[in-house]
Amino acid sequence: MKLLRVGTAGAERPALLDAEGVLRDLTGVVADIDGALLADDAALGRIRTAAEAGELPALDATGLRVGPPIARIGKVVCIGLNYHDHARETGAEPPSEPVVFLKAADTVVGPHDTVLVPRGSRKTDWEVELAVVIGRTARYLGSHEEALAHVAGYAVAHDVSEREFQIERGGTWDKGKNCETFNPLGPWLVTADEVPDPQALALKLWVNGELKQDGSTADQIFPVAEVVRYVSQFMTLYPGDVVNTGTPAGVALGRPEPKPFLRAGDVVELEVEGLGRQRQEFKDA
Amino acid sequence: MKLLRVGTAGAERPALLDAEGVLRDLTGVVADIDGALLADDAALGRIRTAAEAGELPALDATGLRVGPPIARIGKVVCIGLNYHDHARETGAEPPSEPVVFLKAADTVVGPHDTVLVPRGSRKTDWEVELAVVIGRTARYLGSHEEALAHVAGYAVAHDVSEREFQIERGGTWDKGKNCETFNPLGPWLVTADEVPDPQALALKLWVNGELKQDGSTADQIFPVAEVVRYVSQFMTLYPGDVVNTGTPAGVALGRPEPKPFLRAGDVVELEVEGLGRQRQEFKDA
Repeated sequence: MKLLRVGTAGAERPALLDAEGVLRDLTGVVADIDGALLADDAALGRIRTAAEAGELPALDATGLRVGPPIARIGKVVCIGLNYHDHARETGAEPPSEPVVFLKAADTVVGPHDTVLVPRGSRKTDWEVELAVVIGRTARYLGSHEEALAHVAGYAVAHDVSEREFQIERGGTWDKGKNCETFNPLGPWLVTADEVPDPQALALKLWVNGELKQDGSTADQIFPVAEVVRYVSQFMTLYPGDVVNTGTPAGVALGRPEPKPFLRAGDVVELEVEGLGRQRQEFKDA
Repeated sequence: MKLLRVGTAGAERPALLDAEGVLRDLTGVVADIDGALLADDAALGRIRTAAEAGELPALDATGLRVGPPIARIGKVVCIGLNYHDHARETGAEPPSEPVVFLKAADTVVGPHDTVLVPRGSRKTDWEVELAVVIGRTARYLGSHEEALAHVAGYAVAHDVSEREFQIERGGTWDKGKNCETFNPLGPWLVTADEVPDPQALALKLWVNGELKQDGSTADQIFPVAEVVRYVSQFMTLYPGDVVNTGTPAGVALGRPEPKPFLRAGDVVELEVEGLGRQRQEFKDA
């Protein structure tokens, strides 16, 4: 299923995009799409049954904003340098175990919302990523199979990054990863049953129409199952938590000088195979 | 005012500790103590008026668990190496600007709750800290005065840290800072009007009754006002967000080998002047 949330920010309603591409209202079936829903097989079953029975009313998508597909996200765990080609372009050795950092959930916005270039920023950069959405509380998972059983689904994430804040201002990467609006998510949460192989998804990102990133999750150093298993050894993952699994090559940071960092007026589009497409206009904060 | 939340985990009720040390029930006045309340001057005024009028019923504190003093925390922003003496003991240069990292809000537990030593941990360490609780949305603050006007109050935080995960396992510090139960908070949120100088507070921490940390916020490299102003240049702080402002010298990491890291059975007690005292028993995860 493709689950999403539509409406003005903070007042989104739950919806489903059906196999014919028609937007369907879920208001009568579930209160919202959040961690509690993702952990509730009965509620997910009600959505599936209502959808298959054709009982969900169509929604007029005209002019409707798409919000992040999950409400009340707890945390966004991010994996750095997780593609062979991206590690190469940044001059880093491929890490021997996953590099983990955090984004606060308040950085998450809808897939087509405006992204703000922070004040004082000279190095705002793009990163298309496969986001994993957790469906069951995950602690000290023992195997890849167990890890995948804790995944509710997948989405497109844009892990917007300010490289000067991240790398040149002391401390950890978090300083350049948590600026307001820095994590567009969506448009959909695609349930895991519709993503048979998360390691075979193409990822693409364009800036002002020009293709900049063109990768595949097949190039991930640590695949989704290992990322989820690994992270669960260090922190507990809760339903509705999101794991951004890293970005392939092609970011501004990896290019020759003058590096083409983002500015107000730039438009970034990105997609992950089967998970939909985002489009953001950048403006000054 | 000293605001707190008492009751079983996830079902705490709001309370107030009055000037005579009597616990008072706030259930009839406010729904909970959270960011929305802290941003609501009228609601805070209702608590104050009811307390001064002696209208709040006393609560029997016997056997009552104390929870974290704030519900629905958005994020916990942490400042690293923010005391001259702690930077010295770890062999680090005093940073030229604040070192920032994140803890997820799901690491927050009550001040006397059990803390879990993570599986595989050999270097679980203690850190007593002054926590700042945000009361107003803070973006790009321009001055120290403005920063302090965005502070709702203060609390004791225990920034529990796993040093091997933090420093020796690749990536950012977050890996050793986000283990389950790693951020006891409270017992109280003391409103800012009762903390006239946040740079004159003694901090102490004991392990199994032995004094290990004995510092003062006067030794902070970046004072509270600068920390809040600085962080607001990189991320937006929301009401109910918490900022842990760093720890003074005396952690296990700073001691000669064999360093006395924490194990199951250890008891840690800590206090910040005027903000109350915590006590945690450590157990294996």
